[in-house]
Amino acid sequence: MIADISIAPVGEGASVSKYVARAVAIIRESGLKHEFHSMGTNVEGSYDEIVKLVKRCSDAVFKLGAERVLIRMYMDDRHDKVSTIEGKKQSVENKL
Amino acid sequence: MIADISIAPVGEGASVSKYVARAVAIIRESGLKHEFHSMGTNVEGSYDEIVKLVKRCSDAVFKLGAERVLIRMYMDDRHDKVSTIEGKKQSVENKL
Amino acid sequence: MIADISIAPVGEGASVSKYVARAVAIIRESGLKHEFHSMGTNVEGSYDEIVKLVKRCSDAVFKLGAERVLIRMYMDDRHDKVSTIEGKKQSVENKL
Amino acid sequence: MIADISIAPVGEGASVSKYVARAVAIIRESGLKHEFHSMGTNVEGSYDEIVKLVKRCSDAVFKLGAERVLIRMYMDDRHDKVSTIEGKKQSVENKL
Repeated sequence: MIADISIAPVGEGASVSKYVARAVAIIRESGLKHEFHSMGTNVEGSYDEIVKLVKRCSDAVFKLGAERVLIRMYMDDRHDKVSTIEGKKQSVENKL
Repeated sequence: MIADISIAPVGEGASVSKYVARAVAIIRESGLKHEFHSMGTNVEGSYDEIVKLVKRCSDAVFKLGAERVLIRMYMDDRHDKVSTIEGKKQSVENKL
Repeated sequence: MIADISIAPVGEGASVSKYVARAVAIIRESGLKHEFHSMGTNVEGSYDEIVKLVKRCSDAVFKLGAERVLIRMYMDDRHDKVSTIEGKKQSVENKL
Repeated sequence: MIADISIAPVGEGASVSKYVARAVAIIRESGLKHEFHSMGTNVEGSYDEIVKLVKRCSDAVFKLGAERVLIRMYMDDRHDKVSTIEGKKQSVENKL
């Protein structure tokens, strides 16, 4: 499946890029295919792989000192065909 | 933590209440405190409890015949205080 | 349509209920049917009514001193039938 | 502000790329800076510009035959500094 994930602290100041960078680093090290964008990161993997990865990111943000963390996940799971980050974008591009 | 979760099929017609009812039934049977509302269900529990519950709901929606399922999770995790569905609403009500 | 909306500041401390209460007060005064829950507020109205209301809430949160505001909107718009907060919940309840 | 937007029909089959392509085409023609990704499109503009654009996309998806449309908007509005799609990504990259 593909999941758009975002993990960010509340209450650590308006600038949160330090925390986001930590989460993005963990996603990169995971080996899962991903697409970093300005409002989150899309990750390709199984449900279990993705929720474990999000937990590691959230733990790391707390470890950096956050008191409260908001997690957004938006998951797209298809059983009728294999869905990939690249394939999904190509499918739209082909119709433009 | 508290999580707002929504699990719904795409492509099974405009009416999806049959699938939503199946997911809501599984949430009710889980024993976790929850708040059913018109755009999702808020659930109180640990990260692991919540992601396992969402997986059971999603599996059940596929089993009912869905080809594609969209999952939304919005999680609020606090380490500075205990956060509950009732406490969070009360905290806002007290300031109204 | 029905929209689940959430307006909250980032960087004003882990506790944001003061800001949320201001937004909820504005939604109540709007006269639109709504359902307050622990992760947001569902509002029933036209697209224009809802986006104007969200703008008023966001403006008010900035006026209270926030430097950065995150807005979530999740909208469900049906043209095949009239959709209401109560009707949508009843439709699921009937199948439980 | 920056908004991550997604407009998709429910009930028109598991494949919705035809509808998404129509919305993406309207976003491209808008002249607003944007970032197309596999789970939505990030758009840079004022609140009014963005909600008008989303309305045009949603109207177009209904015009293509959809009976029900789900709209997701996730907006990040900062008054402490100018926020851009490129600047926001750069700010995270600089800390990696």
